[in-house]
Amino acid sequence: MTPEETARASADRMWEFDAVSAAQGMLLMSVAPGEARVSMRVRPDMLNAHRICHGGHIFTLADTAFAYACNSHGVSTVAQHCAITFLAPAPPHVVLVAHAREVRLSGRSGVYDVSVSTENGDAIAEFRGLSRAVPKAPIGGAA
Amino acid sequence: MTPEETARASADRMWEFDAVSAAQGMLLMSVAPGEARVSMRVRPDMLNAHRICHGGHIFTLADTAFAYACNSHGVSTVAQHCAITFLAPAPPHVVLVAHAREVRLSGRSGVYDVSVSTENGDAIAEFRGLSRAVPKAPIGGAA
Amino acid sequence: MTPEETARASADRMWEFDAVSAAQGMLLMSVAPGEARVSMRVRPDMLNAHRICHGGHIFTLADTAFAYACNSHGVSTVAQHCAITFLAPAPPHVVLVAHAREVRLSGRSGVYDVSVSTENGDAIAEFRGLSRAVPKAPIGGAA
Amino acid sequence: MTPEETARASADRMWEFDAVSAAQGMLLMSVAPGEARVSMRVRPDMLNAHRICHGGHIFTLADTAFAYACNSHGVSTVAQHCAITFLAPAPPHVVLVAHAREVRLSGRSGVYDVSVSTENGDAIAEFRGLSRAVPKAPIGGAA
Repeated sequence: MTPEETARASADRMWEFDAVSAAQGMLLMSVAPGEARVSMRVRPDMLNAHRICHGGHIFTLADTAFAYACNSHGVSTVAQHCAITFLAPAPPHVVLVAHAREVRLSGRSGVYDVSVSTENGDAIAEFRGLSRAVPKAPIGGAA
Repeated sequence: MTPEETARASADRMWEFDAVSAAQGMLLMSVAPGEARVSMRVRPDMLNAHRICHGGHIFTLADTAFAYACNSHGVSTVAQHCAITFLAPAPPHVVLVAHAREVRLSGRSGVYDVSVSTENGDAIAEFRGLSRAVPKAPIGGAA
Repeated sequence: MTPEETARASADRMWEFDAVSAAQGMLLMSVAPGEARVSMRVRPDMLNAHRICHGGHIFTLADTAFAYACNSHGVSTVAQHCAITFLAPAPPHVVLVAHAREVRLSGRSGVYDVSVSTENGDAIAEFRGLSRAVPKAPIGGAA
Repeated sequence: MTPEETARASADRMWEFDAVSAAQGMLLMSVAPGEARVSMRVRPDMLNAHRICHGGHIFTLADTAFAYACNSHGVSTVAQHCAITFLAPAPPHVVLVAHAREVRLSGRSGVYDVSVSTENGDAIAEFRGLSRAVPKAPIGGAA
């Protein structure tokens, strides 16, 4: 398989078992080696007490893009540590796009950055995730 | 009002507008000045492709406890930056408890730590949130 | 050896090889299992262009307390990831105290928090470090 | 002045007051709007107990590149929060290069990433800094 085919196959297998992303209305727009784009519309049930998208939903979107990017090499990989900076509120109904890119791979550890923007390119959040490969675990879990 | 009454009143007002926490089955166990405890059972629809609780749901639980703690002084306060370290997977059906405590308040900025554990006290994640007070905004949003 | 004796012996061996802490005028005030206190006076050569203590020196102080705390169990342990929040500037000549405490140990990974304050207890910075044990490496390096 | 000239003028003024960078043998290789490169040789007095470059010195190098990048627009800007991930040890005598780039500017807040590598391009650390503009303060301090 080419690296692109491996990325696609890993994503297909993950998506099959990924109930959370589907339930939140996420769409896997693209996946490539070390990279993924995921979009999500801010639904009314995702709003916090300030009537803007709950930070947990923005995190989950970014974390999902991170997961698809860091598993794109065909080795099962998990999140160790994630940090998110909130730059602007995301109002109801906008479509958010999370774009994850690999910054560094060093042995079993990786650093990935995820930018969350509106469809118009307005900055919403910046996320950085640290990953660790667990080569013995199958992608998509024990099924 | 005493600080304890202010904390309770802020929490009541936030909870009224907080659709996300209710939808995820969260329970606000306690709130006090600079402190909050929130619990949540890991439901089947919260599992990721590895059959463990999705990191986004653990983050959302911790972020919720953080929000109740940093708004407990009666001044509207938002998250600027959050970091989470995942220590152990959370299996299906366990009840998670997030305990948020104020570490420092310095002007309009605050630092809060949130420990996420199982009911038995097993460590699941450690979260740190940086908050910023926005005194002109009402708690519970524009209502 | 008791845990306290192990902590003391690890610290003594680290200090012997620790040229950086001595050169910055640091003082190891106390060490115990999972805990350390280190102090440092802000010298004129530690000031940045704003005439306050350079963030790098505050980080180095906190990182040193973290190192003594996470190596206190007698197993060689290194920093993987550190985050620091700057709360207030540290003026020239003040004595800073960094107090490191273990938050969680989970297998080979640990979470440590370090509070940096003036001698009067004014908050300067909050630091969180993630550690990883490397049991085969001797504490104090290759000597 | 063009943005490039503003970046250069800010850097010159900062460098004049920056005793720390000079004392650590740093070299400001280049500066441009939102960007800076700083290099440093790992000296024997920068080694920790493991005989590798102390994390505090790597942080200080990255933090310096961050400071020059975030002050490059001619508005005095300070660090609020920094995180660093250590990817590989830096041995004695190697020359490290820190390359800071602006990721996002949103009002008075900014996000900057700094990659620290050897001259050969080997990854040593990844740093992310959050900045806040303080327009009333002069660059280079009160002098």
